Amino acid sequence: MNSFWDKYPQLQRELEDVKEIMKKNVKTNEKYIEKPLLDLIDSGGKMLRPAFLLLSSKFGKYEKDKHQNLAAIIEMLHMATLIHDDIIDESKLRRGQTTIQSRYGKDYAVYMGDYLFSKCFMMLSEDYSMENMRKISKAITHICMGEIRQYYFRFRSDVSLKRYLKIVSGKTASLFAMSFHIGAKESECDEKMSKALGKIGYNIGMAFQIIDDILDYTAEEETLGKSIKNDLKQGFFTLPLIFALLEDNKRLEILIEKEDVTDDDVIEIINIIRSSNGLTRAKKLAVRYTERAFSIIDSLPNCESKEIIYEITEKLLKREY
Amino acid sequence: MNSFWDKYPQLQRELEDVKEIMKKNVKTNEKYIEKPLLDLIDSGGKMLRPAFLLLSSKFGKYEKDKHQNLAAIIEMLHMATLIHDDIIDESKLRRGQTTIQSRYGKDYAVYMGDYLFSKCFMMLSEDYSMENMRKISKAITHICMGEIRQYYFRFRSDVSLKRYLKIVSGKTASLFAMSFHIGAKESECDEKMSKALGKIGYNIGMAFQIIDDILDYTAEEETLGKSIKNDLKQGFFTLPLIFALLEDNKRLEILIEKEDVTDDDVIEIINIIRSSNGLTRAKKLAVRYTERAFSIIDSLPNCESKEIIYEITEKLLKREY
Repeated sequence: MNSFWDKYPQLQRELEDVKEIMKKNVKTNEKYIEKPLLDLIDSGGKMLRPAFLLLSSKFGKYEKDKHQNLAAIIEMLHMATLIHDDIIDESKLRRGQTTIQSRYGKDYAVYMGDYLFSKCFMMLSEDYSMENMRKISKAITHICMGEIRQYYFRFRSDVSLKRYLKIVSGKTASLFAMSFHIGAKESECDEKMSKALGKIGYNIGMAFQIIDDILDYTAEEETLGKSIKNDLKQGFFTLPLIFALLEDNKRLEILIEKEDVTDDDVIEIINIIRSSNGLTRAKKLAVRYTERAFSIIDSLPNCESKEIIYEITEKLLKREY
Repeated sequence: MNSFWDKYPQLQRELEDVKEIMKKNVKTNEKYIEKPLLDLIDSGGKMLRPAFLLLSSKFGKYEKDKHQNLAAIIEMLHMATLIHDDIIDESKLRRGQTTIQSRYGKDYAVYMGDYLFSKCFMMLSEDYSMENMRKISKAITHICMGEIRQYYFRFRSDVSLKRYLKIVSGKTASLFAMSFHIGAKESECDEKMSKALGKIGYNIGMAFQIIDDILDYTAEEETLGKSIKNDLKQGFFTLPLIFALLEDNKRLEILIEKEDVTDDDVIEIINIIRSSNGLTRAKKLAVRYTERAFSIIDSLPNCESKEIIYEITEKLLKREY
């Protein structure tokens, strides 16, 4: 299990159980389908979404099997989106392992993602309510719309803050929100509590993606530039760049509008952004979303889960990886 | 509406209604998402799956809104698989129109397909039973497994008849079977009748795909070779080729194992297959599946739907397009 949860052995054990449920559900006689999925499950992601779902469910009547199963479904849905993301980014590595698209080809990756999606809906239809089904499929449409939006507005140096936030809201925050919300609903929390938990997830998700986008610009030398070059090549302009562009830097505008961005261009872009206020302003916004999450967390009844959610929210803001 | 249904004005009108439901459901303020989907809906496919669902539902208590809505969902699911198929085949055209992947790029197409998938599950969760949800997601996993299987066994000149049939069963017959089955179930047909209708769908689907694969080899000059070259390049060996290989034709083996298949090679392959028994044997198998469908259709109670299903099954076997 990812060391992220070392401080919470109980939760860590539960996430191990969730992992086992995922493994059980991708089992099939066709080993060439099972193997890449088992590899991905074992590749050691943080499993934030299932953790949030479990933590949230403890504000009501926690039922081990039901909630762990649901947590497994959420993580598998997330995995399906990762498989498809890697096709688009043409990523060679995911969590230090070769991606399905680079190892088995794009075709494989398209259908493996689809397979996992439908598998999740099959699992959902075993046990859960239509209402949750609706929520979950809605969250997936939001993720897709976020990604489509990002793609549609690529290479637009006038991409606005508002539009960036809408993209992030779709592609990241919606699944965080849903994990919290559905955990609460399925443990019979009342509407008010479920909504509050959902909002916490939304704000954590917004902060999480902004921090991710900041880390691309502040990473260690060996990884620095890779994601940014990839993003720039695809024309995806993230928050630090958007803020830097607001400072009316002509050189930056010229660089990002170049048809073919070279390695030297990327270094220059990174340097311009580092010396602008882009990173600081982006960080401030991440802090603001985190504070919003904190203030809702404060309103929750006191319990161990509340403390863990608080600490994790802080840890995600301060992370450097 | 596609002229395929000209003989059945009532059904044709209903399929028009289904189309309107589909259009309503892809409506969104984000025109860049809506437009490609509306274009695909309007591109004039035969809408076989929704037609079969409606015809099947008439063996029980037909409820216009409910069944037309379900028919729309099935066609949208099919559309989602088409969008992803076109990525893999790198198809430029679908039903005479440019594909989403060629017009908007692969990235767009991956997420558009995903969007449509999740939209379908959202629609399903509005009204229908968990049992149907399970059936539908199961059919989708079968489709994906069929496609993955096809991809996995590419470039294998020893691809067996058994394996080919398993691929076809997954990628085509399962959705045909499901359309029939679910139409019956949702109109309160008993288990026996629903199963019989499902089996009719399965057999029609098997015959349909085999005929498709035959037509690739017998098409008019202008289109001849295109799909075959595409299939060969990707290493997909279909039934006429599999049967021809059983005749122990060394030249054919050499040709299909070439690293880079030229246009001349394709013509030679086509000629070898045309002069072999591959096409005749494939046709015989399609006839056998059709006959199996007929014999189950015979057991159905007499009604207009029964006649239409019979006629369509025959028409699909004899089609030359």
